[in-house]
Amino acid sequence: MLKTMLENVRKKAPLVHNITNYVTVNDCANILLACGASPIMSDDIDEVEEITSICGGLNINIGTLNRHTIPSMLAAGKKANACGHPVLLDPVGAGASRLRTDTALRLLNEVKFAAIRGNISEIKTLALGEGTTKGVDADVADTVTDDTLDHAVSFAKKFAQKTGVVIAMTGAVDVVADRERAYVIRNGHPMMSKITGTGCMLSAMSAAYLVSNPSSPLEAVAAAVCAMGLCGERGFKRLGKKDGNASYRQYIIDEIYCLRADDLANGAKYEVR
Amino acid sequence: MLKTMLENVRKKAPLVHNITNYVTVNDCANILLACGASPIMSDDIDEVEEITSICGGLNINIGTLNRHTIPSMLAAGKKANACGHPVLLDPVGAGASRLRTDTALRLLNEVKFAAIRGNISEIKTLALGEGTTKGVDADVADTVTDDTLDHAVSFAKKFAQKTGVVIAMTGAVDVVADRERAYVIRNGHPMMSKITGTGCMLSAMSAAYLVSNPSSPLEAVAAAVCAMGLCGERGFKRLGKKDGNASYRQYIIDEIYCLRADDLANGAKYEVR
Amino acid sequence: MLKTMLENVRKKAPLVHNITNYVTVNDCANILLACGASPIMSDDIDEVEEITSICGGLNINIGTLNRHTIPSMLAAGKKANACGHPVLLDPVGAGASRLRTDTALRLLNEVKFAAIRGNISEIKTLALGEGTTKGVDADVADTVTDDTLDHAVSFAKKFAQKTGVVIAMTGAVDVVADRERAYVIRNGHPMMSKITGTGCMLSAMSAAYLVSNPSSPLEAVAAAVCAMGLCGERGFKRLGKKDGNASYRQYIIDEIYCLRADDLANGAKYEVR
Repeated sequence: MLKTMLENVRKKAPLVHNITNYVTVNDCANILLACGASPIMSDDIDEVEEITSICGGLNINIGTLNRHTIPSMLAAGKKANACGHPVLLDPVGAGASRLRTDTALRLLNEVKFAAIRGNISEIKTLALGEGTTKGVDADVADTVTDDTLDHAVSFAKKFAQKTGVVIAMTGAVDVVADRERAYVIRNGHPMMSKITGTGCMLSAMSAAYLVSNPSSPLEAVAAAVCAMGLCGERGFKRLGKKDGNASYRQYIIDEIYCLRADDLANGAKYEVR
Repeated sequence: MLKTMLENVRKKAPLVHNITNYVTVNDCANILLACGASPIMSDDIDEVEEITSICGGLNINIGTLNRHTIPSMLAAGKKANACGHPVLLDPVGAGASRLRTDTALRLLNEVKFAAIRGNISEIKTLALGEGTTKGVDADVADTVTDDTLDHAVSFAKKFAQKTGVVIAMTGAVDVVADRERAYVIRNGHPMMSKITGTGCMLSAMSAAYLVSNPSSPLEAVAAAVCAMGLCGERGFKRLGKKDGNASYRQYIIDEIYCLRADDLANGAKYEVR
Repeated sequence: MLKTMLENVRKKAPLVHNITNYVTVNDCANILLACGASPIMSDDIDEVEEITSICGGLNINIGTLNRHTIPSMLAAGKKANACGHPVLLDPVGAGASRLRTDTALRLLNEVKFAAIRGNISEIKTLALGEGTTKGVDADVADTVTDDTLDHAVSFAKKFAQKTGVVIAMTGAVDVVADRERAYVIRNGHPMMSKITGTGCMLSAMSAAYLVSNPSSPLEAVAAAVCAMGLCGERGFKRLGKKDGNASYRQYIIDEIYCLRADDLANGAKYEVR
């Protein structure tokens, strides 16, 4: 039950360590607080292992990676593994530069992730070892539609099988898969792509859901994805005539703050394949 | 009179140098503008001394410290001391890692601070040389309640005595103390803890109050703490049914922008012990 | 026609590479999305050339420059030049420290810019090789008024002539000039100076306008400046009694999101000298 996943986050109030980009970091912190978790941001090699030890889980986002934070990501990831904490990877812009692709692949190789959350271009880059990401957005050729959905589901399951990681490919239709089952999720609104950081926020929140639901990683991530999409729908309804993407950003975080477990149970639109 | 403190900030429009974390930096800049000051952010060792020289005061926040910014904090702090500018320390997460604790202690040792603003766990860590901070939030065991208030006041005064620094421990009840007197402040709202950066913003604003009121550091910080808490109350009243922590963050900064000296005089809830 | 400039941004949806400060970076990303462009932020020397190659243009903002990002700015700028992409410089705080002044001058020397956008103190610093910037705001002595406008226009044209770069000096009155013509723009509202990042946002947006209008750099930047000022006016009208600078920031980005080409055509207040 997805609603239990949300309830567990509110009940356990997990502390999540984030090594994340400086573009959307404030939104990531606020959405973690909104969903009931607590954030801590720390990226210096001299403290990341200690910081991650006192947390429940780790969110690694490579959005503005650099030569000082990459070793921190690796060290924190390994330490979180040693602690038995779930680690999530958001491979922002994998495919857009060799550095991003290589770093994401290296992380995938050296750290055991509980989940990877990215757009389909980023996920394909990880699966294939190279990609054609258009900056930090998905390549149009990669969009998941009803025509390509069967293929996307099978691709996600295979990649989950190969890696042993829950794969969350988000876009117009979201696919969240482990080796056996895939949630196909139809929550969300196209205008969400006009806000920077909806993906980053979802990754941070997914990490909190993973920490709070250790025995159900697939359902945990699926619940976070449904929650984000549903709040995108609800926030959109709140938009007035003069509101644009800045107000929309705010409304979405507000909706996550206000979202009750029953709202999620009633509003989640998904099928399991 | 606390209202004079606020009026002086608006009158003098001090320029405040901030070496601060990248999580809440935008909010710190906007709250400085809101209260009537001007922000400048700069953390490179090659310019921090020069930058701090042209400012009126310095706010050092160790929230996302790293090996490149720590030397900048020390250098800027010493330069601000040489210039006779007030320097404020926000020891974010002291106690959560050895690096944070050591850096805060080293700063306290090498720089003469006008004030330290933190939660009680962070302040205790500085006083004891070690701590049990839960990430960047106060440890529950440390919460100041009416039962523990006497102890907290006496602790703050003693630490102020030992260091010669105004100590601001903020939480459900705030204690702002120098060696002789303590303001016990009961402004604020519990929901403020659901926004990232209320502490950071308060520290930045306190630095502006210190610069503008050089002969009254205790009252300056107490006024900033009352102002922040009062705007937390006023912002909370503005919250609609669909508003969450994102709107609340915005309303609090707005309230600081709109706050008049008389509002502060009428709304401040404190006793001096 | 300025409205064509705006339409081209919406039509072409350019990808803009930003090496920018961490204070206002989220606002820069959101305003790029609001105006119809896409942002990517990247500042590591190991990827900036590759990232800038897949973009249409580059925005270099020195607001929180450091010894790791300065080489990235130079490398990305040269690569963008080699690719034939327009590059914009925002010399934040030039004049406030030797590092900022020298870095801005070095960038100007080694990179061919399409435009420079700054306040008058920053631009004067670049033209004279030194300056008296008050932090990151313009020196009061530098304010462009009707009395000093003739001088400012002639100064901007001469600097444009010397450098071959479109010069945008923004403040109470904005002057956007190439070697022959200057747009004198009277859009905007004084309260815009109470928000951090209006200048940074304008620079990011100007880069998007430059990319989308390669044959009209002067008009492109003038259109962006008019759009920002006009949205400052429109956002100001939306302010309620309890709104302050935080809401104002949000409304301005919202207004950029909602701005139609006809709104810009009707609302732009400028003369060409």
